[in-house]
Amino acid sequence: METIFYPTRDSWDGLCKRPVLELKNLDTPVRAILNRVKTDGDEALREYSRQFDKVPVTDFKVSTEELEESEKLVPVKLKKAIETAKKNIEKFHRAQNINPEIIETTAGVRCWRKNVPVEKVGLYIPGGSAPLFSTVLMLAIPAKIAGCSQIALCTPPGDDGKVNPIVLYSAKLTGITEVYKVGGAQAIAAMAYGTETVPKVFKIFGPGNQYVTKAKEIIRSEGITIDIPAGPSEVLLIADSSADPEFIAADLLSQSEHGPDSQVIFLTDSKELLTAVSEEIYKQLYDLPRKSIAGHSLLNSLAILFESVGECIEFSNMYAPEHLIINTVNAGELTGKVVNAGSVFIGKYSCESAGDYASGPNHTLPTNGFALTYSGVSTDSFVKKITFQELTGEGLINLGPSIELMAEAEKLIGHKKAVSVRLKKLKNV
Amino acid sequence: METIFYPTRDSWDGLCKRPVLELKNLDTPVRAILNRVKTDGDEALREYSRQFDKVPVTDFKVSTEELEESEKLVPVKLKKAIETAKKNIEKFHRAQNINPEIIETTAGVRCWRKNVPVEKVGLYIPGGSAPLFSTVLMLAIPAKIAGCSQIALCTPPGDDGKVNPIVLYSAKLTGITEVYKVGGAQAIAAMAYGTETVPKVFKIFGPGNQYVTKAKEIIRSEGITIDIPAGPSEVLLIADSSADPEFIAADLLSQSEHGPDSQVIFLTDSKELLTAVSEEIYKQLYDLPRKSIAGHSLLNSLAILFESVGECIEFSNMYAPEHLIINTVNAGELTGKVVNAGSVFIGKYSCESAGDYASGPNHTLPTNGFALTYSGVSTDSFVKKITFQELTGEGLINLGPSIELMAEAEKLIGHKKAVSVRLKKLKNV
Repeated sequence: METIFYPTRDSWDGLCKRPVLELKNLDTPVRAILNRVKTDGDEALREYSRQFDKVPVTDFKVSTEELEESEKLVPVKLKKAIETAKKNIEKFHRAQNINPEIIETTAGVRCWRKNVPVEKVGLYIPGGSAPLFSTVLMLAIPAKIAGCSQIALCTPPGDDGKVNPIVLYSAKLTGITEVYKVGGAQAIAAMAYGTETVPKVFKIFGPGNQYVTKAKEIIRSEGITIDIPAGPSEVLLIADSSADPEFIAADLLSQSEHGPDSQVIFLTDSKELLTAVSEEIYKQLYDLPRKSIAGHSLLNSLAILFESVGECIEFSNMYAPEHLIINTVNAGELTGKVVNAGSVFIGKYSCESAGDYASGPNHTLPTNGFALTYSGVSTDSFVKKITFQELTGEGLINLGPSIELMAEAEKLIGHKKAVSVRLKKLKNV
Repeated sequence: METIFYPTRDSWDGLCKRPVLELKNLDTPVRAILNRVKTDGDEALREYSRQFDKVPVTDFKVSTEELEESEKLVPVKLKKAIETAKKNIEKFHRAQNINPEIIETTAGVRCWRKNVPVEKVGLYIPGGSAPLFSTVLMLAIPAKIAGCSQIALCTPPGDDGKVNPIVLYSAKLTGITEVYKVGGAQAIAAMAYGTETVPKVFKIFGPGNQYVTKAKEIIRSEGITIDIPAGPSEVLLIADSSADPEFIAADLLSQSEHGPDSQVIFLTDSKELLTAVSEEIYKQLYDLPRKSIAGHSLLNSLAILFESVGECIEFSNMYAPEHLIINTVNAGELTGKVVNAGSVFIGKYSCESAGDYASGPNHTLPTNGFALTYSGVSTDSFVKKITFQELTGEGLINLGPSIELMAEAEKLIGHKKAVSVRLKKLKNV
């Protein structure tokens, strides 16, 4: 962790820079995968499965039996924990599914918005070293609450050709019935274009490695909608002298174990805390199974000493972190000053892992500075808000003359006439 | 207008295809403009202004005097009309700016979302044949309601080197103070990268010609956020035998006068209406000042006869129109069946021009099938919804064990420990 003392304002911009994900070299190989799946469908998926997952897969769709069986393979305690998380995530995301009221903007002119689900969505769940079943909950629950009629989930098979039972259990619990054993860029291609087995969907969600990220970037440029542009995960933590260095170190490490390119930024106005945290981090690091990953990501990370907590918040707003932890005496007050962040964790007991798993808000959040303009995934991500308007004759009589004048001033006489022909008939009634 | 009778289901997909916007040839010239502005800033803008707008512009920023003066140059009646529209648009968009309540998902675990404005936004208003002041209202009003702290508006100067006074008046009325006389791809570049005069913004909104569309596409691939991917404007109109052919023809023409690539789709279950509308269209067409544009766009347009109004709605949902007009006896009921559309106009008096100008809902809507996944511009487009969570000690005691179990199952021991160190201290208190 690099330590910086009292950086001058003109250096802030540079300190906010993220490590660049080098995806350019992936353009040609990923395009090749996308094109192959587009042309050859399931046959291409089978070949890539042999090549990348090192397993032969004949039937990509997980059977109802496999889904049912998963329930027996997950320990009871873990099932209870997943159910608790589900309940909280549901409670939080259900409250987002509101329909604004009907607004009569002018007498006889009624307008409203309605949440209408995106019909077909695809969820990608990475495989690899650990089964990311928490992401199943975070994507499937809002998709179900929104009311999407088709929800396809793709995830790579393990060495045994099967999908991890905890992932299957989480899918089953959230009501997902379509799970496909397809991973990587080829899974994104399958959901973007459709194959004989995997359905073509309208919007694709979920994290993944650089191949998946590149594939999502390409299909997005082709007009297929994705959740949020992706970058490495990151946390920015602000603490003052009241904070417990043990908590801070644990929080920074929990972010750094995500991947070697994870970003960890620690800001404080207390030199003592800075020193204590630096020591504590290396104490805790050696106990972590993923210490080499965490150690690697700490190399890109920063600890910065500022004059005041206010300055820390200002820097944070410029950085626009995915996760922001505020562990100060006046944390509650400070949240009012947060302008750019994906999700904010307030006070000493709100560790990021709470939000990663079980407290309720979504863990799919904007990284890489996208928190300047993007929100995290929510129920909104699975709906369109369609606007409706209904004018009565009275409404058109009230508003028509204004429309006619404006259309005429924009030299759109056809627009004006659509009103005029109606007003003429209304006057003749 | 091509007329199709009772198309078979397998032909629907083909009928939903939009005319392809050929933007590939623009890639090189538009990238050249973007790069030049990135490198040379204002100097590049001045050069492009001479080259494309045919006027020398020394100061790009519209002065306070010019803004003030606009008030005198707009006829009083038109000002009243614009004020009426503003009031309605404000009323509708203000209702969107709600903050969901605080949700206690578990005892001691409080979570909420908060609307936080995108700090810096850029609005592009095209010049050309007509001053699109209505788009100023549709973008500036939600930006102001959201609370964006910097709102920059770019629009090309006219032949006299000035901005149309109605555009300036609309900007002034909505509280915009930063107007720049810059148009085309170079305006998008200026707002994306910043120049000495034009500020760099975080999100860029607004319609434009193919150069503007291409520029927005390129800067989006570079990580700058835009409102909605763009395509030609379109309407789909569903009517039954109860509809007045004069109204239908006027509505179809009002869409077709937008541009030669506008899409107009007319669906009905009544052969008599189809014939009547076809005749009426050509009667009304010749009275339009923009008849050559409208006539050209009618060449790409379709009138389709279906067996029933239910089938019309099914086709419409597959097409996913930007604007959907339902002019049938049971229009109100049918709206419940709309699954994909940008904005819906219900009944015989709800012409599209009402929504284009003055009824309240936004007129910046998803085209080209993007209504499958995108919503139109709204107050939401100018905010991020940041999530917050605050756990008390009790909250962590309640939820901590579930988090620990889940983190362990995902093999993220650092995540588990961030909880464990806290629970340990809580138990020792």
